[in-house]
Amino acid sequence: MDAFIEPIGRLINEFTKLPGVGKKTAQRYAYKIIDMSEEDAKLFAESILECKKKVRYCSVCGNFSEEDTCEICKRREKSVICVVKEPKDVVALEKLREYKGVYHVLHGVISPMDGIGPNDIRIKELLARVGEGVSEVIIATNPDVEGDATAMYIAKLLKPLGVKVTRLAHGIPIGGEIEYTDEVTLSRAFLERKQI
Amino acid sequence: MDAFIEPIGRLINEFTKLPGVGKKTAQRYAYKIIDMSEEDAKLFAESILECKKKVRYCSVCGNFSEEDTCEICKRREKSVICVVKEPKDVVALEKLREYKGVYHVLHGVISPMDGIGPNDIRIKELLARVGEGVSEVIIATNPDVEGDATAMYIAKLLKPLGVKVTRLAHGIPIGGEIEYTDEVTLSRAFLERKQI
Repeated sequence: MDAFIEPIGRLINEFTKLPGVGKKTAQRYAYKIIDMSEEDAKLFAESILECKKKVRYCSVCGNFSEEDTCEICKRREKSVICVVKEPKDVVALEKLREYKGVYHVLHGVISPMDGIGPNDIRIKELLARVGEGVSEVIIATNPDVEGDATAMYIAKLLKPLGVKVTRLAHGIPIGGEIEYTDEVTLSRAFLERKQI
Repeated sequence: MDAFIEPIGRLINEFTKLPGVGKKTAQRYAYKIIDMSEEDAKLFAESILECKKKVRYCSVCGNFSEEDTCEICKRREKSVICVVKEPKDVVALEKLREYKGVYHVLHGVISPMDGIGPNDIRIKELLARVGEGVSEVIIATNPDVEGDATAMYIAKLLKPLGVKVTRLAHGIPIGGEIEYTDEVTLSRAFLERKQI
């Protein structure tokens, strides 16, 4: 027998499904729920259900949206498209408040090791969007093997269409120290050095 | 404007109410919920509501219980009562599978700094339980100022009733090293040294 009564044990088990949450942390979360007022616990549960029910993907860019087309696709200029792997990358880029164009979420990257090919991510949808009026496609996939391969693949497909394809710069992070920068980043920074 | 659409922002906000969860962690949790199947998210939300609805406190010992009297109070021998601060302490002690008696949860400790006096915690209820048939009361409050004060206060009240009052031993943790043991623990271990 577990030391917990059934409803608590069940809640702890649910919390362990969250990323990085072990049994001990889940326990703390469950105690917190029990300590909450009935109303607060209800709000909590409802926000989970509501989030699951209301959040879908924008039919144009694939980002999180409450409606068929997301707010970004509705309002922003469509001449520049920024291609990202996941919706959370959009959140990270939006925080900068610098980029004024639209996005295209691939929902994955090409990864033969995991059996994910070009047809398993939203590349076809990207090609369909890149028609007249699109002047630049910025590829913002992660700087890892899969991200690089996906960027190269997309660039190859887009260049014949006469669109400018760019990629986010890679190098030593601002505030970082050369001494402590990993070798891969450092050699990339060397390769992509710029004239000043 | 936040970078998140409203239902996601709301869920993130709810997650930050959990202990030790900042905005970044809450974000990861929210993404996980969105990635879950509808069914799983429903189970999650339901377990929160169910936990809040079904879990109450045992009318005898004050521990978490689904019924008026908890399983421990119903089944175990009542001659020994172990006094703890919170229900989670019961869980910790139950994991040992060594203790066969019942518990008494104080739901707090005496703390004049926080305005918590003897009447604000379940001391009266403890006195009411210590009648005939109770041979020993083990006080298992935390070894800090409030826990110590509470233990002393309870011991003073119980001794005239002719019941044996004990407290958990304090000292160097098993596996700990003397070199790295903090001074308070070490001096306590000295004071409470035992003949071998």
